[in-house]
Amino acid sequence: MTGQGQAKRLTIRDVAAVAGVSYGTVSRVLNGGHWVSPEARAAVEAAVARTGYTANHAARSLATGRADSVAFLLTEPHHLLFSDPTFARLLRGATEALAQHDKTLVLVIADTEAERKNVERFVRAGHVDGVMLISSHEANPLLLSLLAARVPTVSTGSPLGLESEIPTVAVDEAGSARIMTRYLLDKGHRRIAIITGPNDTPGGRYRLDGFRAEMGTLFDPALVEQDTYSSEAGGRAMARILERSGAPDAVFAASDIIAVGAITALRHAGYSVPGDVAVAGFDDSGLAESHDPPLTTMRQPWAEISRAMVELVLAGIDGREVDSVILPTELVVRETA
Amino acid sequence: MTGQGQAKRLTIRDVAAVAGVSYGTVSRVLNGGHWVSPEARAAVEAAVARTGYTANHAARSLATGRADSVAFLLTEPHHLLFSDPTFARLLRGATEALAQHDKTLVLVIADTEAERKNVERFVRAGHVDGVMLISSHEANPLLLSLLAARVPTVSTGSPLGLESEIPTVAVDEAGSARIMTRYLLDKGHRRIAIITGPNDTPGGRYRLDGFRAEMGTLFDPALVEQDTYSSEAGGRAMARILERSGAPDAVFAASDIIAVGAITALRHAGYSVPGDVAVAGFDDSGLAESHDPPLTTMRQPWAEISRAMVELVLAGIDGREVDSVILPTELVVRETA
Repeated sequence: MTGQGQAKRLTIRDVAAVAGVSYGTVSRVLNGGHWVSPEARAAVEAAVARTGYTANHAARSLATGRADSVAFLLTEPHHLLFSDPTFARLLRGATEALAQHDKTLVLVIADTEAERKNVERFVRAGHVDGVMLISSHEANPLLLSLLAARVPTVSTGSPLGLESEIPTVAVDEAGSARIMTRYLLDKGHRRIAIITGPNDTPGGRYRLDGFRAEMGTLFDPALVEQDTYSSEAGGRAMARILERSGAPDAVFAASDIIAVGAITALRHAGYSVPGDVAVAGFDDSGLAESHDPPLTTMRQPWAEISRAMVELVLAGIDGREVDSVILPTELVVRETA
Repeated sequence: MTGQGQAKRLTIRDVAAVAGVSYGTVSRVLNGGHWVSPEARAAVEAAVARTGYTANHAARSLATGRADSVAFLLTEPHHLLFSDPTFARLLRGATEALAQHDKTLVLVIADTEAERKNVERFVRAGHVDGVMLISSHEANPLLLSLLAARVPTVSTGSPLGLESEIPTVAVDEAGSARIMTRYLLDKGHRRIAIITGPNDTPGGRYRLDGFRAEMGTLFDPALVEQDTYSSEAGGRAMARILERSGAPDAVFAASDIIAVGAITALRHAGYSVPGDVAVAGFDDSGLAESHDPPLTTMRQPWAEISRAMVELVLAGIDGREVDSVILPTELVVRETA
């Protein structure tokens, strides 16, 4: 693709001659330095600096800007990767979609400040060509840094505060919440509680917006709780609602994992589900189906979300302008509501 | 560290002048090519080739051979990452240990042939400094390729057939299996079955060796089954033993996840655990404790295993010779045996 304006390209043999070591020693240093004495390594490094030798892979990387890899970047605590099945669904879909383009998916976790700094350096050094950001808390400092470095980045869920800066793959959060709320109202429920995620996440904020809009005059702030996306949080939030307002007719939990915790808390307080209280979730990431009883929920199209993220990030890597993608959800009626 | 034998180092401004584009355009191309026209990109690439410009990160990478990252390489099907809690334990421990050294852990999965090729290229291109191989089926082609490229690599579990080539962090498989078998014998059990992993894994092979040695003349080949490390496989294997030989006194499952499947199959066939049949596992990776009833098992020291893998791979990256590490296990008596 690019013209080679230089005369003869330097080879490993030239470096070896300058360093006074063997071809194999240079090769080993360039391939990571395993089984090389410190003296030989120093000689090779000095020769590399003196000759300006550029290994093929680095030369190719410089010419094309490509590492043929994309980061699956999780800015959440580690345990969520394993406790919330949505991440597994997205990871699997994204790996498969990337493999079709001969790209490697590398998963990196940046939860602590130290991890964030290291990941930032790794990404900015060009070891990945782009980033799929999984999770979207508002004012994510890593996202700001990637934007500043113009690293092609897409996010799942709308990146609050940066909606116009980053291509996003998301579902219609508010619209989906309205559909579930309407379903619960149509079943005759009037006192409907909602337990949703943090207000600095699009799921937390916009699902509550949709719920409030659909409830209209039936909306009761005393039946609203926001907490993190975990079953423990769902249980705590449910207990707070019960203590404050007694049992509602129905609970709309804005994730399946929150619904599981809410159901446990309801049973613990002596209520049956769905007999006494109906409970609906959101996600349908595997947990809803395997739960006993199976959860009524809003299905997010996980395979399509992964595929769209891969398409968007590859387009960004190719320098093409892309628009955000909004995908449809689907009401899945099972046994809990 | 290394002497800069060249005169003045080329800068992005030099490249921009040659390419006839702005500083920002060159910077964007070098940082991945987002928001750059194809024409501008081509001009920059030609200028890079003509001037021999080397971006700082690539220069540093060439001089030191460092990407400041280490791969956590899983050569197993994706779903195991999420269904077998041992991987979560190792991942968490390794991420924390690497963060203390300001290194990024990148998780890559190479299960299919296509994934393997892409991961091989990614690793050999120097985007990671070393590899922690999680899982160790015999004659792993990726392991052979990493060895050929002299990429610093450590493995968990003895890499069968390559024991002398790769530093390994492992437990004493046979010795641990003997301890559990002795415990079951001391409890008065005589007809003891074993369900262990595939014979091309050290866990599968050496835990069976230890069991056989400790059982002595009580060893009965009709009570031996080998299958994959999953609860489905444990259930299938248990059903085969029951059909062939009736209920044993006890079952030694060579992983907790196999034990869970075996217990389900025993209950399904009408046997209580531990009332009718005692069942012991291996791993103690979280599942054993949360299972109802909690599993008697051999505890692997997960945090120490992760830490030792990180120490060994960092030593390899520094070019230091390292020996394999064998860590002790511990018998944990709970309720199933």
